[in-house]
Amino acid sequence: MRTVRSTAIVGIVLGSDSDLPIMKSAAELLDEWNVPYELTVASAHRTPHRAIQYAATAKQRGLQILIAAAGGAAHLPGVMAALTPLPVIGVPIKTSKLDGLDSLLSIAQMPDGIPVATVAINSAKNAALLACRILGIFQPRIASKMEKYRAHLKKSVESKAKRLDLEGYKKYLKRLS
Amino acid sequence: MRTVRSTAIVGIVLGSDSDLPIMKSAAELLDEWNVPYELTVASAHRTPHRAIQYAATAKQRGLQILIAAAGGAAHLPGVMAALTPLPVIGVPIKTSKLDGLDSLLSIAQMPDGIPVATVAINSAKNAALLACRILGIFQPRIASKMEKYRAHLKKSVESKAKRLDLEGYKKYLKRLS
Amino acid sequence: MRTVRSTAIVGIVLGSDSDLPIMKSAAELLDEWNVPYELTVASAHRTPHRAIQYAATAKQRGLQILIAAAGGAAHLPGVMAALTPLPVIGVPIKTSKLDGLDSLLSIAQMPDGIPVATVAINSAKNAALLACRILGIFQPRIASKMEKYRAHLKKSVESKAKRLDLEGYKKYLKRLS
Amino acid sequence: MRTVRSTAIVGIVLGSDSDLPIMKSAAELLDEWNVPYELTVASAHRTPHRAIQYAATAKQRGLQILIAAAGGAAHLPGVMAALTPLPVIGVPIKTSKLDGLDSLLSIAQMPDGIPVATVAINSAKNAALLACRILGIFQPRIASKMEKYRAHLKKSVESKAKRLDLEGYKKYLKRLS
Amino acid sequence: MRTVRSTAIVGIVLGSDSDLPIMKSAAELLDEWNVPYELTVASAHRTPHRAIQYAATAKQRGLQILIAAAGGAAHLPGVMAALTPLPVIGVPIKTSKLDGLDSLLSIAQMPDGIPVATVAINSAKNAALLACRILGIFQPRIASKMEKYRAHLKKSVESKAKRLDLEGYKKYLKRLS
Amino acid sequence: MRTVRSTAIVGIVLGSDSDLPIMKSAAELLDEWNVPYELTVASAHRTPHRAIQYAATAKQRGLQILIAAAGGAAHLPGVMAALTPLPVIGVPIKTSKLDGLDSLLSIAQMPDGIPVATVAINSAKNAALLACRILGIFQPRIASKMEKYRAHLKKSVESKAKRLDLEGYKKYLKRLS
Amino acid sequence: MRTVRSTAIVGIVLGSDSDLPIMKSAAELLDEWNVPYELTVASAHRTPHRAIQYAATAKQRGLQILIAAAGGAAHLPGVMAALTPLPVIGVPIKTSKLDGLDSLLSIAQMPDGIPVATVAINSAKNAALLACRILGIFQPRIASKMEKYRAHLKKSVESKAKRLDLEGYKKYLKRLS
Amino acid sequence: MRTVRSTAIVGIVLGSDSDLPIMKSAAELLDEWNVPYELTVASAHRTPHRAIQYAATAKQRGLQILIAAAGGAAHLPGVMAALTPLPVIGVPIKTSKLDGLDSLLSIAQMPDGIPVATVAINSAKNAALLACRILGIFQPRIASKMEKYRAHLKKSVESKAKRLDLEGYKKYLKRLS
Repeated sequence: MRTVRSTAIVGIVLGSDSDLPIMKSAAELLDEWNVPYELTVASAHRTPHRAIQYAATAKQRGLQILIAAAGGAAHLPGVMAALTPLPVIGVPIKTSKLDGLDSLLSIAQMPDGIPVATVAINSAKNAALLACRILGIFQPRIASKMEKYRAHLKKSVESKAKRLDLEGYKKYLKRLS
Repeated sequence: MRTVRSTAIVGIVLGSDSDLPIMKSAAELLDEWNVPYELTVASAHRTPHRAIQYAATAKQRGLQILIAAAGGAAHLPGVMAALTPLPVIGVPIKTSKLDGLDSLLSIAQMPDGIPVATVAINSAKNAALLACRILGIFQPRIASKMEKYRAHLKKSVESKAKRLDLEGYKKYLKRLS
Repeated sequence: MRTVRSTAIVGIVLGSDSDLPIMKSAAELLDEWNVPYELTVASAHRTPHRAIQYAATAKQRGLQILIAAAGGAAHLPGVMAALTPLPVIGVPIKTSKLDGLDSLLSIAQMPDGIPVATVAINSAKNAALLACRILGIFQPRIASKMEKYRAHLKKSVESKAKRLDLEGYKKYLKRLS
Repeated sequence: MRTVRSTAIVGIVLGSDSDLPIMKSAAELLDEWNVPYELTVASAHRTPHRAIQYAATAKQRGLQILIAAAGGAAHLPGVMAALTPLPVIGVPIKTSKLDGLDSLLSIAQMPDGIPVATVAINSAKNAALLACRILGIFQPRIASKMEKYRAHLKKSVESKAKRLDLEGYKKYLKRLS
Repeated sequence: MRTVRSTAIVGIVLGSDSDLPIMKSAAELLDEWNVPYELTVASAHRTPHRAIQYAATAKQRGLQILIAAAGGAAHLPGVMAALTPLPVIGVPIKTSKLDGLDSLLSIAQMPDGIPVATVAINSAKNAALLACRILGIFQPRIASKMEKYRAHLKKSVESKAKRLDLEGYKKYLKRLS
Repeated sequence: MRTVRSTAIVGIVLGSDSDLPIMKSAAELLDEWNVPYELTVASAHRTPHRAIQYAATAKQRGLQILIAAAGGAAHLPGVMAALTPLPVIGVPIKTSKLDGLDSLLSIAQMPDGIPVATVAINSAKNAALLACRILGIFQPRIASKMEKYRAHLKKSVESKAKRLDLEGYKKYLKRLS
Repeated sequence: MRTVRSTAIVGIVLGSDSDLPIMKSAAELLDEWNVPYELTVASAHRTPHRAIQYAATAKQRGLQILIAAAGGAAHLPGVMAALTPLPVIGVPIKTSKLDGLDSLLSIAQMPDGIPVATVAINSAKNAALLACRILGIFQPRIASKMEKYRAHLKKSVESKAKRLDLEGYKKYLKRLS
Repeated sequence: MRTVRSTAIVGIVLGSDSDLPIMKSAAELLDEWNVPYELTVASAHRTPHRAIQYAATAKQRGLQILIAAAGGAAHLPGVMAALTPLPVIGVPIKTSKLDGLDSLLSIAQMPDGIPVATVAINSAKNAALLACRILGIFQPRIASKMEKYRAHLKKSVESKAKRLDLEGYKKYLKRLS
């Protein structure tokens, strides 16, 4: 499987390859749903020109949504949003210092004019799901995946509830651990 | 001008009509760009059934994106996202107590499975712009508005820079005040 | 032991079964005090209809108090409070990211009109004790349990103080470790 | 109208009379709903014995619920909860310094054993409503008031929504200001 | 060695015996400096009468300074300060949830009228040193201990600096690990 | 009245004369209680040598306690504590930016070895009262003032409670405003 | 006076002209010390190419230090630092929402590799003074200005202290107000 | 290798030798780039005179830049900046309690007049890189090192991006772990 594809409609950009263990959940979901995407590393600080170029050419290369992940003074999502008219989803990565509060504020608190669609700290999966909600507006196939996914979420909770009811919480907990 | 329209593709929902002075910027931008929208009040706490029904029927009524604004323990965007497969944009409203930090965390920190596209505290304009970026993926008219808007942002800053250069900062400041 | 009972007067609802290791302390205390309760999972985000239905029918099913636990953008307690006239006790679950501050603010900062009785982060035991204080208003048996419990808390501290006095802190610490 | 009454079932205690402009909303709601209450000032720090005595005798004097308000290092609700088996509702008062975060944490973060039912910062009304939800468990008159109140909240939002729809947001805003 | 002594001039009070592993540093320093103290457990919440009695009789029993440690909604130091005219030193204990911020604010943010001398989170040693600085005002023996201690702190840093200079940081680090 | 006196036993040091409107409450209380003090300005940053010299000579000049006030990166109390064996009381001054959280953390979070007795943000009065509690250990005249002050605090709250009871909260509030 | 000069060695860049009322203090100090500078507006988000070009050409145009100011998700200083080898001083601008904490974290928490020299929130003057400290390393004229400035700071505090001593704090305060 | 050298132009000062495992990255980078430096320990609190003397004589001893690291109530960088006209770079050290927020605020929030160039929490490497950016203004050798370093950062990210593209994220992740 190649991660950068000419047919990609979602571009996932990591500020650092150390974000990959977190961000792989986004890739996995897009893989599973057959949403063509590409995944690369481009730091707003260490490779600004690469990040700039990536964002500035994203639309003409056929991308429809960007997902950008970064931690600390997390500028990647905002800088990309400044250089593309596409929607940019920002994933604040938890750092070892301020618990991700710095990442969250650096991504969410964008000034008027340039929005970033911020998801929860480390929530790579929600970034992919948000991308799919967006794509689902005009791609019935993805909208239908989303309906199935939501039904699956529901069933999963319901079957847990049923099991918890049958077993009682003590047995349930023992099985969990 | 009617605020609820059968042709609306964006639904703006306020947790309280006291959010309107902030959220009007979203409506104004959509008005200006001729993006059909509807605007209503539906509290997750005071009218849960209304909020639930609104979200649950949003897609079948032809809406493509929801924008939900709320403050404090701000549950409206998350609850709506739980009930629709559409993308939901959340606007954390600044409260008089914790400066909007409570609103931001209540909206951004959604669990895996149900994303909310969070924008900055009070950033109604960015919510509308994010909606337009999303619509622009498949509506060239809106994409083209976005390009013009971004060009306008750029020109506006550049003309300020030019004026600042010509006048010097002292004269510029005097004129501002 | 079944966890859902027709005789239950307290309903414990977990936003996720991953909250069970924390929330079992609430169940244990109610078990010990013979307060009939039921315990289930119902996510405000993954199974909104289940959560809504649970809360909306809670009173007519004979429940008197709800205890709802959730983490992150923790909407379950507030959403339940919106759908029942019963008192709802909210337990903010500590998450791995913002130390539970997000959970606490999402639960405590409810708007005027719909209160949630918030206890400390992860404090499942206090949720159960608060339920018992409430029930104790009109159930002398539970009020009397509460008096015994408070006497026990007192004795437990006093016997520790006595032992600490007798042994000195060095020996006391050695025994502890 | 006397504020301390032998028939009172709710006791409202202010850490300082400077909390009265905020806390009057609690008294007003109880007045309106004909819930007998008493209201007094008793500081955990300036009049500890008064606060202690108040809490320690609350139950035998016929009180069923205490509401305690305090700001900053807000110890009143916790100290009262330590001295009574009754449910204690804590209202964190916003201070001029840390925006009420200190008050909220001082009240909510109680140790295991002694719960305080914490409501939002400055949310006197929710404290009274929570008291009424509790009383409503066994007093049908108050439960019925609560149903009416919740219906009123709902109608109030719905009529605002209708008006907003009819007038459009611009006219609505003009009327508001 | 007995921990409670009739000759004690410093009273160390722990909100819980789980604070002992942190607070032992205070006892150790007072032991080392031959400052007579007593050490006990008295929770403001689980044994309010014990805490109240302790504080209220502290002065007449000959104590000159109280050191009180507590975590979370940490009321012990403030409650003691309300019941004694003696100086009370508060030690905020770090909890597993909010990193001790709750403890710090609950202890430091006392209202006008009743001060608590707050030291750093978990800083039992500084509580003891502060007690000694206070006692040193009128006890030359303790003042002289303080001078020696401060000279020792200085020498300890200087000898580390010298060693770091001689060895270079690489060798120094190797030796440390 | 001269502010610097050879007989002073308390030294109040302001990081800036802009702290005076807050810190005057400390001076007023010491004036009222006839505690000889001196008051001066010495910035840890703008006049480090002055601050150093002040602290280093404080004890030999007869001072027994220092009170130091500072805001933002508030180093004055800690730097003084490093240069004197006397107890140093730190007053965090609220700044216009981070609400005094920066001041509080900069003063309270001292490393082991050098304690600062931190009081609440802007709580000049509590700094003076803490100084008097310390002096009261060995000066019966001041201890007796403290007892009177505490009795006065108590009476003041009690008379407010009585008035509130007599007038009812509505009349009481009207009189207040 | 022109604000952009070919001889400039310091470049002040504002994320928005609304930062000018704060940032003018930097310009004023450089004017006063005869340090040639230029001042312009270039938003990382609204005019990314302008900001990029400015930073990327700064060194070859003869600039030696950049000062960049921004608020909220404040990316300008970091983005500039990514594009120039010159030292970049970042000024976090206080916003109306999170008190400047978002700005501070967005600027200070840069990842390894690309430093930004962060000063205090709104501290335009310190940005200019830091620039002068840097220039003073190799420009004796500026170093000498710095010595004079520091002497002036000292004198200013000392004369205030003297006046405070002579007048007493009451008279001093009256004169201030 | 000696750590204190008469030829040093950068002085690295640690508030405690426990900061060395973090701060060694600064020393390593300066070693690698052949920037003469010295490294020592001098606590603002435990050895104030040593810290004062170090800063006060730094310039005349030929130093051009100071790097100061400290944690908690981190006064070292600010105190040094008060005593030298040289630029002082402050490194906030993460503590075990408040995640380094206390350190960051204690260093960054300096009052007008005395700037500290603050870098990210624990970012010793950025402190050294900032020093080199400053030295690079007038030392072409160091400026050229900086260009190489920036090129190296860029290449390193690019080669990771290439590898990620070739291998796909799954294989890449496996190799990492």
